[in-house]
Amino acid sequence: MKIAMLGSGFIARFYATSLHAQRRTDKIVSVYSRNIDNAERFAQEYALPHFTDQMEEAIQNPEVEVVIISLPNDQHEPAVMACARAKKHVICTKPLGRTAAEAKRMLDAVEKAGIFGGYLEDLCYTPKFLKSLESINNGDIGRVLWAKSRETHPGPHSDWFWDIEKSGGGAMIDLGCHCVEISRNFIGKNVRPLEVMCWADTQVHPIDAEDHAIGLVKYANGAIGQFEVSWAFRGGMDLRDEVMGTEGTIWINSFLRTGFEMFTSGKGGGYVAEKAEVDKGWLFPVGDEAHELGYPNMFTDMFTSIEEKKDPLETFYDGYIVNAILDAAYKSAKTKLWEPVVLEVWRGDDTDIYDKGIKSYDKDHYLIKEELLPNGDTKLILKHKVTGKVTQTTNTPREK
Amino acid sequence: MKIAMLGSGFIARFYATSLHAQRRTDKIVSVYSRNIDNAERFAQEYALPHFTDQMEEAIQNPEVEVVIISLPNDQHEPAVMACARAKKHVICTKPLGRTAAEAKRMLDAVEKAGIFGGYLEDLCYTPKFLKSLESINNGDIGRVLWAKSRETHPGPHSDWFWDIEKSGGGAMIDLGCHCVEISRNFIGKNVRPLEVMCWADTQVHPIDAEDHAIGLVKYANGAIGQFEVSWAFRGGMDLRDEVMGTEGTIWINSFLRTGFEMFTSGKGGGYVAEKAEVDKGWLFPVGDEAHELGYPNMFTDMFTSIEEKKDPLETFYDGYIVNAILDAAYKSAKTKLWEPVVLEVWRGDDTDIYDKGIKSYDKDHYLIKEELLPNGDTKLILKHKVTGKVTQTTNTPREK
Amino acid sequence: MKIAMLGSGFIARFYATSLHAQRRTDKIVSVYSRNIDNAERFAQEYALPHFTDQMEEAIQNPEVEVVIISLPNDQHEPAVMACARAKKHVICTKPLGRTAAEAKRMLDAVEKAGIFGGYLEDLCYTPKFLKSLESINNGDIGRVLWAKSRETHPGPHSDWFWDIEKSGGGAMIDLGCHCVEISRNFIGKNVRPLEVMCWADTQVHPIDAEDHAIGLVKYANGAIGQFEVSWAFRGGMDLRDEVMGTEGTIWINSFLRTGFEMFTSGKGGGYVAEKAEVDKGWLFPVGDEAHELGYPNMFTDMFTSIEEKKDPLETFYDGYIVNAILDAAYKSAKTKLWEPVVLEVWRGDDTDIYDKGIKSYDKDHYLIKEELLPNGDTKLILKHKVTGKVTQTTNTPREK
Amino acid sequence: MKIAMLGSGFIARFYATSLHAQRRTDKIVSVYSRNIDNAERFAQEYALPHFTDQMEEAIQNPEVEVVIISLPNDQHEPAVMACARAKKHVICTKPLGRTAAEAKRMLDAVEKAGIFGGYLEDLCYTPKFLKSLESINNGDIGRVLWAKSRETHPGPHSDWFWDIEKSGGGAMIDLGCHCVEISRNFIGKNVRPLEVMCWADTQVHPIDAEDHAIGLVKYANGAIGQFEVSWAFRGGMDLRDEVMGTEGTIWINSFLRTGFEMFTSGKGGGYVAEKAEVDKGWLFPVGDEAHELGYPNMFTDMFTSIEEKKDPLETFYDGYIVNAILDAAYKSAKTKLWEPVVLEVWRGDDTDIYDKGIKSYDKDHYLIKEELLPNGDTKLILKHKVTGKVTQTTNTPREK
Repeated sequence: MKIAMLGSGFIARFYATSLHAQRRTDKIVSVYSRNIDNAERFAQEYALPHFTDQMEEAIQNPEVEVVIISLPNDQHEPAVMACARAKKHVICTKPLGRTAAEAKRMLDAVEKAGIFGGYLEDLCYTPKFLKSLESINNGDIGRVLWAKSRETHPGPHSDWFWDIEKSGGGAMIDLGCHCVEISRNFIGKNVRPLEVMCWADTQVHPIDAEDHAIGLVKYANGAIGQFEVSWAFRGGMDLRDEVMGTEGTIWINSFLRTGFEMFTSGKGGGYVAEKAEVDKGWLFPVGDEAHELGYPNMFTDMFTSIEEKKDPLETFYDGYIVNAILDAAYKSAKTKLWEPVVLEVWRGDDTDIYDKGIKSYDKDHYLIKEELLPNGDTKLILKHKVTGKVTQTTNTPREK
Repeated sequence: MKIAMLGSGFIARFYATSLHAQRRTDKIVSVYSRNIDNAERFAQEYALPHFTDQMEEAIQNPEVEVVIISLPNDQHEPAVMACARAKKHVICTKPLGRTAAEAKRMLDAVEKAGIFGGYLEDLCYTPKFLKSLESINNGDIGRVLWAKSRETHPGPHSDWFWDIEKSGGGAMIDLGCHCVEISRNFIGKNVRPLEVMCWADTQVHPIDAEDHAIGLVKYANGAIGQFEVSWAFRGGMDLRDEVMGTEGTIWINSFLRTGFEMFTSGKGGGYVAEKAEVDKGWLFPVGDEAHELGYPNMFTDMFTSIEEKKDPLETFYDGYIVNAILDAAYKSAKTKLWEPVVLEVWRGDDTDIYDKGIKSYDKDHYLIKEELLPNGDTKLILKHKVTGKVTQTTNTPREK
Repeated sequence: MKIAMLGSGFIARFYATSLHAQRRTDKIVSVYSRNIDNAERFAQEYALPHFTDQMEEAIQNPEVEVVIISLPNDQHEPAVMACARAKKHVICTKPLGRTAAEAKRMLDAVEKAGIFGGYLEDLCYTPKFLKSLESINNGDIGRVLWAKSRETHPGPHSDWFWDIEKSGGGAMIDLGCHCVEISRNFIGKNVRPLEVMCWADTQVHPIDAEDHAIGLVKYANGAIGQFEVSWAFRGGMDLRDEVMGTEGTIWINSFLRTGFEMFTSGKGGGYVAEKAEVDKGWLFPVGDEAHELGYPNMFTDMFTSIEEKKDPLETFYDGYIVNAILDAAYKSAKTKLWEPVVLEVWRGDDTDIYDKGIKSYDKDHYLIKEELLPNGDTKLILKHKVTGKVTQTTNTPREK
Repeated sequence: MKIAMLGSGFIARFYATSLHAQRRTDKIVSVYSRNIDNAERFAQEYALPHFTDQMEEAIQNPEVEVVIISLPNDQHEPAVMACARAKKHVICTKPLGRTAAEAKRMLDAVEKAGIFGGYLEDLCYTPKFLKSLESINNGDIGRVLWAKSRETHPGPHSDWFWDIEKSGGGAMIDLGCHCVEISRNFIGKNVRPLEVMCWADTQVHPIDAEDHAIGLVKYANGAIGQFEVSWAFRGGMDLRDEVMGTEGTIWINSFLRTGFEMFTSGKGGGYVAEKAEVDKGWLFPVGDEAHELGYPNMFTDMFTSIEEKKDPLETFYDGYIVNAILDAAYKSAKTKLWEPVVLEVWRGDDTDIYDKGIKSYDKDHYLIKEELLPNGDTKLILKHKVTGKVTQTTNTPREK
């Protein structure tokens, strides 16, 4: 497909590098930046035929089939509106909006215009994430009880991120959007998020936004989602997910411990790894950062979905749900209460009746625990269904 | 020293095995169990000269210098009271009480009787914990911002643990007491815990108590403590701590990943590891469980402190603080509010004024972030002290 | 580019899946298998326009620009010869030949025909390998002293691999070819491999070939290469490299420990991972196997090199060197002697003079070791240049 | 027991610290050092009642029941002879001798004198080692095929180690003695070591001894032992063992990756870890170094064995076998041949007939491999017992 890139900063470069790698068919044909010099430099670097400092010009370029928004958060809405007017498919970097209200207007605009609205939530496309989601859908870890996602690092590179007006928040809007959507996928996108409790604080930096936050999201089926985000972490970029199910566990480490370890005395002088904070001692590079962060899988899904006229894994609707959860989180951080997730649109299940799968041992007892002892006996801990009394019994197998 | 052991169950065996290992000088001389057969069997197994089913008889045995309480939670208070009456030093397994009120009465009793009251919080004595505490006190990771401790496993072995009357709660009272005291040590025992937010639920088992809980503890210096506990985890026993400081990070894995990995087809038939859930495939044994869990260091501190008439690292007072934090957590899980930590006694700092260490860049600006770029330049992100405006600037070194 | 695939087995499928993924431009247009049913099934599965059981027909198909050889080892030579006759570019799976003589004939044929001869050594294209090679070339770990590569698993899937006539050997020809070329890259392709010492044995299986081997390869600059291969390993597929340099260390784990850990009780029933041996307990899946094994990077390099008329990273010449080293290893396993690497063609450096970088401390002494003591002093261990006497001295800094 | 310590250097301190920790009963009562100041300082530090610069005086001290030799390698023999004369039990640090001849004289001396001769091979007493040995003896990993042990670090602290006269060699005598005995335990102490192939070189340092060596030890049952040692490793102290058996695998990491990870910006200024090489960035401390290195378990076994008049796990005889294997290794490094292990005394099995456990599939075929396919079928790879022909067949279960 032929692509217009809006933006020429850090994330635009990361996207462009992924798109032009590995002999892929899709090509960027135009780049827009508010600063014409940046646009030109970007066009040169990626050998693009066109650049401009007029956003509309890039979008309306007749060659362009799809627009990628890689702009600061406060410019997502106007850019989406321009795409809707031009009837150009649009895929937008995360978070979709600074608030759910903003995201809802973008969702409505693309749906009304009949264009494709893809949500560039790369961390829901990492190889490890996709494979673990498949395992969970296979039932390998049973019913999901808890899904935690953590993203922390020493803070973003660009100045606008630190300005609450432009970004819409701090570490939570920047990193929490990833974590919330990761947990939501693991728990099930059809399961309604009910309410959020969040602690957030500005522990280190002289900024108005939070640089550290921890939140809990309660889902209709009793599962709990959790996010941990920080701009004050020391040691690199820490990207980890943990899922606990009734039949198993999944632990994913996407960045700092991926089976690549290196010690250097620092005498070589090479630039070793991004956000690594140090350039000597033990370092933990990632083999292929873009792939490990999900970019190739994400763009493949987006462009193939456009061609096949189907929904991608992550849509503007998903972006809207994420913003609604984060809105509740921001409110909770202020009110110190569990705040409901307010959803003007909800397309998932509406039930709150879920089977816990409590096991009866016999007609009078529930089974609390069954344990194989080293001597071959089985220990049973039971609860009487009426009296509630807990008892313990041991079964010896007839022949061992 | 000469010891009376109260209790003959799982934890009493673990203690006794540690005490009688490695040519240590201290010896158990009497064991009490409500069930005389269990007492006799225990005495035989550890070659003890005396056993009884009368608690007072064990405590008042004239040979006995110190009493170890390894009884179910609801029997801690009467046992401590009996030690106080007999003026025998006492060390008690965790949690000290089922509630802060219970713990407070025990604290008062030992202090009034002038006897030693040691709190057997083994996980604050693990080799990794002690070494990391030393590093934190050296300033190696700067000011602690967040201290998380996690303990999860598939549920306890003994029936009484599953009975809320006897245990005083579920996973939170059982495992959360460890986590709370670990975080408190990392953040600083002198820093007052202010309030607690806790989510708790019974997700899997047919019991009245919670089998999964997550809590946040806010401290007076702005640091946040976190605990994650569960009786529904699959995969063994997961014991991990994570500390984030302004100058560094500490990650401790005390059980499931300690540098010992084993694959077995299961054809050997050996009993491989406790709580491992499976006996074939990849297993992760611990070299020396007792040592990794802190028992030898804990008993060394306790007996040496008694002899040297000084406080051990973990006292009845600490046990009381832990119970007070857990009381707030249990209340919060019901009210869904941040609940204050109610402390009748507080022996730490009373200030709530702590320096955040915000750095000025020049007289007009704060420094948000300083970043070394790959080309050798330094990028500075600054905030104006009056207007709050965020700006970015790049410094090129004169000569590189 | 337009591709003919020779072969329809395990490795052909792996290649085809990689080639047709991620919206890549290159396409397979014909498949050959000796068994017409297999050819047809393969063509259907990958939606290919053409299939045949006549090798020449696939190669000479006028649409075909490049041929991929994914055949058993004994069929590489005739297939290459057919490509040379048809003047079609050819890329061939590893090992190039069963012996150096075979490989040499293939090398000569492609060079004489003026066609491209790419060697599909995927493990020299993994993301971790490429990044570590870049670090080594930057000098981050100094002079390479030792480069070990290890590949072990429970044995190949296809029957022909177990037949020494068809495969040319056992675990060493199958897996050792990877390891030898990995070490050679780390040490430097220009450095001449001198001689090989190899132990090989058939420890477990009722076969004629070795199922376990360990070898050392001495290089002209004093570096040592090492390979460890086995078809008797239990626990999955173990792919690890270790490099030791004068200024650093690199450890790569490409398969069994890549930051993805999963526990399952096995009740879900899903098929979890290839070669994992077990389907419950702790499992260690790989996110994207093909990418982690280097296929996408490898094909990108091959096709781009063809288009740009340059050598790929791995050529038929490299395949020939690898075969020559393995020939020496097989000989050594029999003679129990260090066997010279016999190279009819050598295109690298011919020197055996390399600087060890021994440091003088002063005009009379060499520096053996410099060590910073905890008290801030520096301890020096020196050797007298003439007498050889080792002495120790401590320097205290003027002001600390 | 009452102990005389010979030596006051690095290893003597490590031993003394372990002995006087954890309320152990055994006490050092005298210390000898050639340098009286060192002896006095040591005595003060460990609160010892006696010190001397006369070795005989320490040994013959009537209070002394057992002597610990912590002297440079060249002084082991005279010290053992003095103990034999004084009829004092003796335990000696590793390696026992510089050569097998030396070790044999020491072995003969203690046996003739009727005293206890314990070999302080601490790494055969680490918690992980003891537990894995137990698993192997249980049959959990089947028949051991390969046992590798690796010890590398940036070189020893003391000057005498670098002097080949005093130490008897380089990295191989220093570190290889550990590795050889570890492998021998895993393979079975009763299995005769037959011959050794060794590569050794001085790759980095201006010394006469080797600073890097790799060796293979062939055992009578077909198992292969392997050691990798270096004084040129960068990144700390790397202690790892790997065992491959027909039914399983064991991987032990005893030092650099034990579940304790720490990042520090270095602003704290604390001294973090021994041999860590760096004091900022990612560090990997060990919780309790002495315990992780086996000291407490080792001394417990030694003193308990003396009291119970039984052999400890590691005796002078074991030390002698290790020296004999290392003698062969040193010879092989020079001759470049597999050198036989010359044993004047051998107390293990004398057979070389061992069952490989080759499995028949039916009366005509051996089973090469059985593999469960994803579709539930079982694939069998068979070899004809007479013709040697390899065939493949697939079994579909009746009902799945």
